[in-house]
Amino acid sequence: MKAIRWHPPSYDIRVERIAVPEIQQPDDAIVKVTLAALCGSDLHIYRGHGGVDKIHTCGHEFIGEIVSLGSSYGSHAEGRPKLYSNLKVGDKVVSPFTVNCGECHVCRLGYTARCPEGALFGTPVLEGGQAQYVRVPKAGGTLFNLSNPSTWSTTLSNEEKERALTGLADTSLLMLADILPTGVFAALQAINHPKVQPTITGRPWPLCLSSGTGTTGNEVPFTTDDRTLTLAIIGLGPVGICASVSLLDALATRRLPFRIVAIDPIESRREKMKAVYAAIGESGKGSGQFIVHSIEDAKLIVKDWTGGIGCTAVLEVVGNTSALTLAYDLVQAFGVITSVGVHGEPPLPFTGRQAYNKNVSFDFGRCPARAMFPMAFDLLVKRQDVFGGVGRPESLIDKLVDFDSAAESYRAFEKGEVGKVIFDPWK
Amino acid sequence: MKAIRWHPPSYDIRVERIAVPEIQQPDDAIVKVTLAALCGSDLHIYRGHGGVDKIHTCGHEFIGEIVSLGSSYGSHAEGRPKLYSNLKVGDKVVSPFTVNCGECHVCRLGYTARCPEGALFGTPVLEGGQAQYVRVPKAGGTLFNLSNPSTWSTTLSNEEKERALTGLADTSLLMLADILPTGVFAALQAINHPKVQPTITGRPWPLCLSSGTGTTGNEVPFTTDDRTLTLAIIGLGPVGICASVSLLDALATRRLPFRIVAIDPIESRREKMKAVYAAIGESGKGSGQFIVHSIEDAKLIVKDWTGGIGCTAVLEVVGNTSALTLAYDLVQAFGVITSVGVHGEPPLPFTGRQAYNKNVSFDFGRCPARAMFPMAFDLLVKRQDVFGGVGRPESLIDKLVDFDSAAESYRAFEKGEVGKVIFDPWK
Repeated sequence: MKAIRWHPPSYDIRVERIAVPEIQQPDDAIVKVTLAALCGSDLHIYRGHGGVDKIHTCGHEFIGEIVSLGSSYGSHAEGRPKLYSNLKVGDKVVSPFTVNCGECHVCRLGYTARCPEGALFGTPVLEGGQAQYVRVPKAGGTLFNLSNPSTWSTTLSNEEKERALTGLADTSLLMLADILPTGVFAALQAINHPKVQPTITGRPWPLCLSSGTGTTGNEVPFTTDDRTLTLAIIGLGPVGICASVSLLDALATRRLPFRIVAIDPIESRREKMKAVYAAIGESGKGSGQFIVHSIEDAKLIVKDWTGGIGCTAVLEVVGNTSALTLAYDLVQAFGVITSVGVHGEPPLPFTGRQAYNKNVSFDFGRCPARAMFPMAFDLLVKRQDVFGGVGRPESLIDKLVDFDSAAESYRAFEKGEVGKVIFDPWK
Repeated sequence: MKAIRWHPPSYDIRVERIAVPEIQQPDDAIVKVTLAALCGSDLHIYRGHGGVDKIHTCGHEFIGEIVSLGSSYGSHAEGRPKLYSNLKVGDKVVSPFTVNCGECHVCRLGYTARCPEGALFGTPVLEGGQAQYVRVPKAGGTLFNLSNPSTWSTTLSNEEKERALTGLADTSLLMLADILPTGVFAALQAINHPKVQPTITGRPWPLCLSSGTGTTGNEVPFTTDDRTLTLAIIGLGPVGICASVSLLDALATRRLPFRIVAIDPIESRREKMKAVYAAIGESGKGSGQFIVHSIEDAKLIVKDWTGGIGCTAVLEVVGNTSALTLAYDLVQAFGVITSVGVHGEPPLPFTGRQAYNKNVSFDFGRCPARAMFPMAFDLLVKRQDVFGGVGRPESLIDKLVDFDSAAESYRAFEKGEVGKVIFDPWK
């Protein structure tokens, strides 16, 4: 089969013919890949920053069809995740970017991205999905079965399920692999943080944490402004755009007043964000302000909006120290920084005193994509207005190319000359 | 009047005669101090670590009686915090360790510790409470009126209020100034963090965040162990002990299964914690394990309890980098570190990769003590079994001394030769 392979030490991408993977363990599945995407976090290894020296197949975003299953599947899977008994050869599936068993303590809690048996596709420990076929370990815990709505979330109506089964292009469904659940995760963490609850509930800390009717004994009433969420999103790559769309949807659904500034230093990304926002139907926008700006302007806007107090919460969707520093500068005392950016070796750019003095809360880390699938899938179905196509101004995907363009696509993507790229392994 | 004064550059405490403070602003109150306490965070300036060079009166924990009020008080305080119309000369009051106006955006949200008009007592910007009298700016937003139950929380019964008014010693009430609300804040942040909710609710992330009945489509049932909170408390000084008592009370009240390891390297502190735990009535202990241990033992215990997964949440009540590092080592992936320790100049001891790879959440910072008063007061009333006395094995207060012992008390406290010390300015 054909596969896109990384060679050490860096910037060396080759399309090679290698053996089709085979079932190695009873829980394995072999997936024939229909589409695979290039993701910003692929660039860590590409650039040689990952400390990696093993040649391997790239990619952790893929969609495809089951062609082979290990011996665990079918009738003898009682008590195991549903997919062990339900998954069939021929089913259309999307995989999260990491493997998870679905049945250990960590997976039971829903923290699938940190399953002790987990692994990230497209790394030395697990061959990636930028190939014609990929082996998926623990597939019954890992995969999302697009052919079997009974294994989806229960929040979709039958009509929506039908629409999803027939109407969603594979290019849209591929966003479930990473960028859409990660964006939803970022928005969800921000909105659900306890420190955001005074603004949402209209009750002061700590009363906002209970549903009772107590008072602090000495409070004054909230103003309209106190009830308005001031939010910033730093980084408008594909995940940042997904986070923005998810945040807008969550705010609209809950009818919460808000003002959002979405920030990126790169003009083409800001233009994409604006095009996406323009393409969202009114029901997905809510009634607040949504402003797209460069870094310096954004600081002034937040200062102006809040009289220098700062943002209720900031979503950091970049993964470097300057983004974290900007998040700190923008957030209010007792504010929340939700960071889904992939961070590396540099230390966190804060002294203990800075953390203490601003009473800042941080949520770091990787999206538990498998656990987030139902919620991300709901949003995908609702927001087909923006998650539909390829190459349109509002499309998150810039190009659909064949494997012959792999090396050039990596080069151009790394240079920022092109946005998200999808590979068709069979063209 | 007599006051305990700090002199630069360090370790120089003198009892001096200075002028009794006077009303400077309409919102001021003058409080005659009945008791003032020495707190671990007083040591930052004492040791010369605060970058301070101004002689000033020490102390931010005090209780006393109103002797004079500015012109804001009484009948012309409509729309202001209740205390502006209710506070009277002669009222018994306890102050949080910081001033807060009670009526700005930040105060309305309940984040009183970061009021832009706020200040910390016992620093160059605001004379402290280790004196016979202290000026309290913005007293109507700041003080808690112990003489007027109508301005307290509504969760106490009339019987409990009566018991509180008559039964609580000033040495107990003084704990409201800082250590008790800070301990309650630490426990509250841990229990209310979204990442702790799967364990508490028995529903996986992200379903734990809603009250609905959806499923992730592929989950397996929780075990008893999945529902058990594994918690660590690092630091068993007075605040750490308050945090432990508060955490135990919250877990008992909610009938949650748990196992807690309370950690301190100093044996005398561990003994104090054990004595306090032994003195708590059964209703305040819940049905989980509570183990007090040194650092290395604690790591082994958590490893043994969780098969190497780690703690659901860790309370860091120390305020240095080694405590933060220990917290990181103990916490699970997707775990929570709630830090109420006062941190200084050293950078946070984590790389971005460490934060990302463990999906760790942090809550840093100062307790909004004024906002926490009702909740802390409830606990004080409930836990008179442990918050009662002075000098008993389970007492948080080791000694009640006069001002002549001030310099020696600071010296011994800094060396760890004595626990919490209270000054009587009139003895």
